[in-house]
Amino acid sequence: MSIKKNRKWCLASRPVGLTKESDFEWKEVELEEIKDGQLLVRVIYLSIDPTNRGWIKAESYLPAVQIGEVMRGIAIGIVEESRHPDFAVNDMVQGMLGWQEYLISDGSGLTVLPKGLPVPITAHFGLFGHIGLSAYFGLLDIGKPKSGETLVVSAAAGAVGSLVGQIGKIIGCRVVGIAGTDEKCEWLTGELGFDAAINYKKESVFRRLKEYCPDGIDVYFDNVGGNILDTVLALINIRARIVTCGLISQYNAEKPVPGPYNYGNILVKRARVEGFIVLDYFDRADEAITKLAEWFAEGKINYRVDIIEGLKNAPATMNRLFDGSHSGKLIIQVSEEPKVN
Amino acid sequence: MSIKKNRKWCLASRPVGLTKESDFEWKEVELEEIKDGQLLVRVIYLSIDPTNRGWIKAESYLPAVQIGEVMRGIAIGIVEESRHPDFAVNDMVQGMLGWQEYLISDGSGLTVLPKGLPVPITAHFGLFGHIGLSAYFGLLDIGKPKSGETLVVSAAAGAVGSLVGQIGKIIGCRVVGIAGTDEKCEWLTGELGFDAAINYKKESVFRRLKEYCPDGIDVYFDNVGGNILDTVLALINIRARIVTCGLISQYNAEKPVPGPYNYGNILVKRARVEGFIVLDYFDRADEAITKLAEWFAEGKINYRVDIIEGLKNAPATMNRLFDGSHSGKLIIQVSEEPKVN
Repeated sequence: MSIKKNRKWCLASRPVGLTKESDFEWKEVELEEIKDGQLLVRVIYLSIDPTNRGWIKAESYLPAVQIGEVMRGIAIGIVEESRHPDFAVNDMVQGMLGWQEYLISDGSGLTVLPKGLPVPITAHFGLFGHIGLSAYFGLLDIGKPKSGETLVVSAAAGAVGSLVGQIGKIIGCRVVGIAGTDEKCEWLTGELGFDAAINYKKESVFRRLKEYCPDGIDVYFDNVGGNILDTVLALINIRARIVTCGLISQYNAEKPVPGPYNYGNILVKRARVEGFIVLDYFDRADEAITKLAEWFAEGKINYRVDIIEGLKNAPATMNRLFDGSHSGKLIIQVSEEPKVN
Repeated sequence: MSIKKNRKWCLASRPVGLTKESDFEWKEVELEEIKDGQLLVRVIYLSIDPTNRGWIKAESYLPAVQIGEVMRGIAIGIVEESRHPDFAVNDMVQGMLGWQEYLISDGSGLTVLPKGLPVPITAHFGLFGHIGLSAYFGLLDIGKPKSGETLVVSAAAGAVGSLVGQIGKIIGCRVVGIAGTDEKCEWLTGELGFDAAINYKKESVFRRLKEYCPDGIDVYFDNVGGNILDTVLALINIRARIVTCGLISQYNAEKPVPGPYNYGNILVKRARVEGFIVLDYFDRADEAITKLAEWFAEGKINYRVDIIEGLKNAPATMNRLFDGSHSGKLIIQVSEEPKVN
C-alpha cells in the first residue's frame, strides 16, 4: 500500500472578528495504516456553514475546537479502506470529517449514505442532511405555521432559508424573504415562488415588511438576529413564533452584542422565541428526508449549491457566509467524486 | 337620592421616566343618575400593578389611556345602585373600575365576586384574580416545570413572584427567588419555603445563582428583564423555558432599552422564551382559583398584601412598584369595606 499524505487546516488561534487565513495552519502529514475496527475516508465535499464560526469561538452546543486541532466540519467522503464490519470500500459516508483530505475513523458519528438516490451527491448538503433537517424541523416543529399565516425568512437565499420559504409555500403561508442582492430576491420570487422578497441592503426592511405583510407576521424564521430581528419584532402578531436558527449578524462580533430593543414585544404580543439545534433532530432524519425527496420529485422545492474547488480555499470561503456573496449551499470540493457511485 | 361626588385621577400627560404626580390631574365631579341598564359601583380596593405604567406609555396589549381619561385600574367595589338585571345592590364586583371613587357602568367587563369565601376581600387581589392567574398559568402553562427541575423567580417577593415560587415548591421544583431586601429574602426562605433567595442589591446574582442552582436553571419566571435576565440566560440548561411575565426594569426607561446580551444562548441552549398576558386566561379562571383556594386551605401557599389608604396616594404608590419598597400585593384602599359582606 502506498503512503498517503493528508493535508488539513488546523486551528492556529481564536479569531477576533472576521476569521483570517492565518487563524488556521495548513499542515501536511503522512497517514498511518488503519487498524482493526478503523476505516479510511477520502473527503469529497465539505459543507461550510455559519455555525462553523461559533465552533472556533467558544464552547456552545459543541465543545470549542481547540488550538492545534483539525478544524471541525461536516463532510461527505468515500471509504477507501475498511477494517470495520459496518463500512465497505466505496461506501459514501457523511459526518464530522473535518477540514482535511482524509480521515481515519472508528466509524462513530458516520452515516452511510443511501445508494441509488436520483440526486447528485451534493443534494445531501443542499436538500437533505443538516440543511434540509434544519429547514424542515425548524419551520414545522418550532415555527408551527398554519395555512394562511404570514412567514418571514431572513438569509432567505441561503441554504436553509431558501428551503424554509418553499416549505412555507407548500403549507399555504404567505412567504416573504429577506436577502442581500436583487439577483437573490429575483430567484426567491421567480424560481422559488416566494410571495415577496426584500433586498435589505437597498430597501427599508420596516417599510417593505409593512407593505408585504398586510396582516402582520405570524412566524419569523430567524437566521440573522440583529437589526432585522428587531424590525420583525416590531411587526409581529399576537402569538407569533420566532424560530431562532442562526444569528449570523453577530458571529464575528468583537464585543458583546445587545439583544433586540423590541424584546418587550415578546411580552406584549405573547410571542414565543425558540432556539433549536439540528443535531437534536438527527434521529428523526428519515421523516424529513422522505418528505423533502417527495417534494423535490414533485417539483415543489428546489435548491442551489455554490461549489468552491479546493480545501485550500476553506478559510476564505467561510467568510463568504457573512458578506452575502453566495447563495444556496456553500460547499468546498476537496477531491473528485467517484466515476460511478 | 343625594347628589354624590366622584373624585378621580385622570391622565394629564405622558410620563417621561418615573411617573410624577403632576402627570395626573385630580378631578372632582358630580355623579349623574344611573339609567336603565346601568349600575353605580363604589370602589373599595384598587390594585396597583407594574403593567399600569405601560398603559400610560403607549398602545400595548390594551389601548393606551388617553390624556384626560380616568386612569385605568383593576379594582373591587360594591354595587350601591342598580338598574341592571345582572347586578344587585351589595354585590361585590371586580373589573377595570379605574382610579376613582365611583363608576357608573353598563356592567360590561365586571365580574360579581362569589359570596361566602372564607378569605378577606383583598385575597381577590393577593391570591386570586389577575395575580393568582398570572402565577398559576404563567408558571404551569408557559413554564411547564417538572418535579426536580430548578425554577428561578425574579421580583420573588412581589405579588405574582411569591405565588410562583410557592407553586413551584408544590410541583416539586428547587426554587430560588431574587428580591431586593434581606427582609424579603428571609420571608421567601422562611415563611414561603423557597430553597434559597438572593438579595440582588447586595449580592452577585451570577455567583449566587451558580451556588444555589448547582444543576443549572430549567425555568425562569421573569418579572424584571434587564441585567437579571441576562445573568439567568448565562446559566440556563438545554431546553430551558423563560416565562416573560413582566419587564419591570424597563417600564420607566426614557430611551429604548437593549435586549439581553446573552440572547444567543436561546439558540445554543434550544431555549424557549414566551410572553403571556393574563387577560388571555380569564376564561379559565375557575381552574386556577379552585387549585389556589385548595392549596391555601391546606396551608401550602400564603400571600401578603400591602394596603395604602386613600386614592390620593395612587400615583406615588405606583412608583413604589419600581423602587422595591413593598412586598406582596400593593393595594390602595379607596373606601371602607361593607360591615357584612
